[in-house]
Amino acid sequence: MNKKAIISGKNWSASDYAEGILRGDRVVLSRAITLVESSRPEHRELAQQVLEKCLPHSGNSFRIGITGPPGVGKSSFIEAFGNYIVQEQGYKLAVLAIDPSSQVSGGSILGDKTRMEKLSLESNAFIRPSPAGSSLGGVANCTHESMLLCEAAGFEMIFIETVGVGQSETAVAGMVDFFMLLLLPGAGDELQGIKRGIVEMADILAVNKADGDRIELAKSARKDYAQALHLFSEKPSGWLPKAVTCSANSGEGLPEIWKLIADYQAIVKLNGWFNENRKAQLAAWFSSQLEQSIHRFFFENPVVKSALEAQKQAVLEGKISPTNAAHQLLDLFLKSLPK
Amino acid sequence: MNKKAIISGKNWSASDYAEGILRGDRVVLSRAITLVESSRPEHRELAQQVLEKCLPHSGNSFRIGITGPPGVGKSSFIEAFGNYIVQEQGYKLAVLAIDPSSQVSGGSILGDKTRMEKLSLESNAFIRPSPAGSSLGGVANCTHESMLLCEAAGFEMIFIETVGVGQSETAVAGMVDFFMLLLLPGAGDELQGIKRGIVEMADILAVNKADGDRIELAKSARKDYAQALHLFSEKPSGWLPKAVTCSANSGEGLPEIWKLIADYQAIVKLNGWFNENRKAQLAAWFSSQLEQSIHRFFFENPVVKSALEAQKQAVLEGKISPTNAAHQLLDLFLKSLPK
Repeated sequence: MNKKAIISGKNWSASDYAEGILRGDRVVLSRAITLVESSRPEHRELAQQVLEKCLPHSGNSFRIGITGPPGVGKSSFIEAFGNYIVQEQGYKLAVLAIDPSSQVSGGSILGDKTRMEKLSLESNAFIRPSPAGSSLGGVANCTHESMLLCEAAGFEMIFIETVGVGQSETAVAGMVDFFMLLLLPGAGDELQGIKRGIVEMADILAVNKADGDRIELAKSARKDYAQALHLFSEKPSGWLPKAVTCSANSGEGLPEIWKLIADYQAIVKLNGWFNENRKAQLAAWFSSQLEQSIHRFFFENPVVKSALEAQKQAVLEGKISPTNAAHQLLDLFLKSLPK
Repeated sequence: MNKKAIISGKNWSASDYAEGILRGDRVVLSRAITLVESSRPEHRELAQQVLEKCLPHSGNSFRIGITGPPGVGKSSFIEAFGNYIVQEQGYKLAVLAIDPSSQVSGGSILGDKTRMEKLSLESNAFIRPSPAGSSLGGVANCTHESMLLCEAAGFEMIFIETVGVGQSETAVAGMVDFFMLLLLPGAGDELQGIKRGIVEMADILAVNKADGDRIELAKSARKDYAQALHLFSEKPSGWLPKAVTCSANSGEGLPEIWKLIADYQAIVKLNGWFNENRKAQLAAWFSSQLEQSIHRFFFENPVVKSALEAQKQAVLEGKISPTNAAHQLLDLFLKSLPK
């Protein structure tokens, strides 16, 4: 590729992107993720070509989902735990953060420099906030694909951060090897508005901000959560979820969390769950992509678009049965397809 | 129609069916429901024609969903409450029972004569057990359509009975005006394995078998349930769910339940919820019919059928990305359509 292309990124071919990613160039990786996130058809197509080239080099990371209620200190935790992993353990770490607040603007408002100041300066760390996009399926897909690109670029640890509200946690849990829930001290067993379903997905419940005069509160919260965990049945992974305390400020508890993650990895790689789960996740992703493609193909058809509302009205006025209305719409759709 | 056709039901036209239904002929109604339940394409088409003719005469009933755990005495309750409604209140009642046990045989094994002996002899009652079918969407659709036919035949009250396991309750709640949950005395607040979501859908919790030496137990259970109901927020219908006791054996509590249903009807017809809910249900039914049609149209395509497994394998082996695999399958599908 010529020098101008290197600087501007314009007219890059799929090979240009793939080569840059495979040699670990973070600027190229970042641009490729932008491509993956784009909804423009020509970008979509190029992104798929880049992905196909990177696919054989992906999969070699450990994927960790991190969530928690607003205010629990997710960014500070990732900054502290990320630095521990990069500096003390010598891993290359990529952080993908899904930012629901950017749904309106279309671009992310998270300044990663200010959110994770030290981590963003590490040459072995890559931090990427992503807009939440207009649909959950869209987010899940972009994040999944971005993760594969990070893996191809040589990142051995991937954090996927979500805000602990809405349904993005389920989507994230469907693409990671390990799921972590951060909680605040002093909220007892009400689980801070976190849905039980999210608690059940967690492999670690970590009570954050266990420092200063909150240490006792955090310890007591940890005990409550540990007891609550006993009510859940054993996970199909064979892992018994743990409750711990930690502090992003003091660094307390971070080595213990790292140790638990290492234990988990050893167990699930030995008992086969690791591979089994990855295959199941891939199959589910394919299934959901297929459903989305069919859905989009039908509902974005101009003929369907213009006839849908009238058919719905006819149903509501009792002029036609829902089944017949659906069949008629399908017929219109079929006739509209290019011969 | 000629006499032979009347007896055999063969070669009946949509008009033959519709005329029979509209004059309240229970044999014709029963055959029309069999048609609606059939999966044969020629039956499906005829069924839709019959439905279109009956549609303008449907909707004039009050629809009640009744569920509860196995052993709670749903059939006995419906027998007793149904007789009360038909004999004491003078209504024409149709009972549609979804029978999950008949999924394998394809036909229903519920003998309505033995289950609801007295009610089945009433000329103003119509009892129809239905096979659960192979898919939840299928059941919901058949039951919904059968209900419309019963309404066109002049039945003013419809009971839809489901066994309180699985997800059919949600489907049934999506097609009725009022939802009733039967419970056993003496099971305290554990709600007898009934999911909380089902309890939240109920407009009445009725503790059945409140007779003999179980009266005190039933009263105490009713009190527990009444307290539990306070934890739920008010329903969008403006109705506050009630907990009552009743006995299919002694008839105790049946007039009170009837009174509550009348109160409910008065409230929701006055505040607009009744119509609003019916419209929302119709819109949801149309939406789900449309999704099912598109899904079936794609996945029953022979080209898709034969290529799907190979594409899935390629995804699992990392040879192709899920997005690309989905697009390729969609392309194959498009090329397979008749020009």
